[in-house]
Amino acid sequence: MNVLIVYAHPEPRSLNGALRDFAVAHLEAAGHAVQVSDLYAMNWKATLDADDATDRAPDADARFDPSLDSKRAFETGTQRDDIAREQARLKWADAVILQFPLWWFSMPAIMKGWVERVYAYGFAYGVGEHSDTHWGDRYGEGTLAGKRAMLIVTAGGWESHYGARGINGPIDDLLFPIQHGVLYYPGFDVLPPFVIYRTGKMDDARFEATRAALGARLDALHDTPPIPYRRQNAGDYEIPALTLKAEIAPEQTGFAAHLAHEY
Amino acid sequence: MNVLIVYAHPEPRSLNGALRDFAVAHLEAAGHAVQVSDLYAMNWKATLDADDATDRAPDADARFDPSLDSKRAFETGTQRDDIAREQARLKWADAVILQFPLWWFSMPAIMKGWVERVYAYGFAYGVGEHSDTHWGDRYGEGTLAGKRAMLIVTAGGWESHYGARGINGPIDDLLFPIQHGVLYYPGFDVLPPFVIYRTGKMDDARFEATRAALGARLDALHDTPPIPYRRQNAGDYEIPALTLKAEIAPEQTGFAAHLAHEY
Repeated sequence: MNVLIVYAHPEPRSLNGALRDFAVAHLEAAGHAVQVSDLYAMNWKATLDADDATDRAPDADARFDPSLDSKRAFETGTQRDDIAREQARLKWADAVILQFPLWWFSMPAIMKGWVERVYAYGFAYGVGEHSDTHWGDRYGEGTLAGKRAMLIVTAGGWESHYGARGINGPIDDLLFPIQHGVLYYPGFDVLPPFVIYRTGKMDDARFEATRAALGARLDALHDTPPIPYRRQNAGDYEIPALTLKAEIAPEQTGFAAHLAHEY
Repeated sequence: MNVLIVYAHPEPRSLNGALRDFAVAHLEAAGHAVQVSDLYAMNWKATLDADDATDRAPDADARFDPSLDSKRAFETGTQRDDIAREQARLKWADAVILQFPLWWFSMPAIMKGWVERVYAYGFAYGVGEHSDTHWGDRYGEGTLAGKRAMLIVTAGGWESHYGARGINGPIDDLLFPIQHGVLYYPGFDVLPPFVIYRTGKMDDARFEATRAALGARLDALHDTPPIPYRRQNAGDYEIPALTLKAEIAPEQTGFAAHLAHEY
């Protein structure tokens, strides 16, 4: 497989750096082709703005529209090179791994900016027809359908803090905006995340165990069952309200209602 | 009151820009002092990195630790000026408003980077003692306790898409990592958010109604009951597991379990 790792940590000599190096070596040893978008090393531009199109005059008097300007630049080939290059990597990849430390319960700003800028209108959203039975190609359909995605996340807190009744909220719910909203939305099959807790207390034994567990997850990248999110246009949702039909999981609300079954 | 608006939109001539201008004028007319951190206009540095301390040699051989380096810079007064200035604004404020468009189900990268860089170790986390009954000053206690905070959020999607059974997930759950994780964590009382949906279909009548509703929310900034999140150290949680005690909301899991009552 072709595997793209999008990686966001400022210090290569960190736990994240060690796990990234391990993942690359492990995947390559298994015969996969690997590319890494190391956002800090690339000095990735985190902020989406008018400079993301190459043909916008600096004194342009037109209003900047984050969405429509992205559409125009994508369609006319006037996106900045860094954006086009990442889109090409996504198209090349059979599997995409986003690896990052959990900062304030989400991805680092530099990776959020990767999503915002690379996910152009026409590339990752705003594709497909709208009708009474189909509300665009998204949530299970889209440009990136057929590819797999997985998060590798490190957290300083304890696993119990992220449990079903833990104070930070359940990790699956904290990651839902990323897994469902960023990855499933443009079509990825999303595998369960690989989460490492309490990173400040990592001794050699746990580090070895973590590497072994990560290796097993990477070995199963091609056949791990994805999180069973419901497809938007497959009959479970009212269109255009995009609410679950009354007979679908009738007792359920919230993120979990968008799973077709437990996993 | 002293009100700080932290604002993230790249185009002043946008709906967000118009609502920001309205909010400033409305608050000032009511006698409040208002400061705006307009992150795009300030060209805010979104990416947390080693340059956030002023005394780090460019060829420093030491590992960069995002958390411990932030602690050292905060304690020794070697934070970059932009960070120290925002911390001073937060201390000045009685109420803080974060205003942003919902991009990929969270705040824009530039604002996420404001959180990551301004929320230094020792300022917004890593404060207070740890004991059998107290796990640091956080979730209801902390440097920013006694202040109020509120989100103003615009979304392109329909309100039903963000409802209890809507495909995007309920807006309260999507905002939980921000409201509970970013705002309540360092001590803010968090007011219910002000959310504007379907921003692409904003006609004059709805714009007027939106401004009126926002004005009413701003008029009530000082006495709106906050979201009743549970305080970490007030007896509801096991310490140090930080899970809800068995007798607290025994049937509940997930984000909603951290509310002491419905609101």
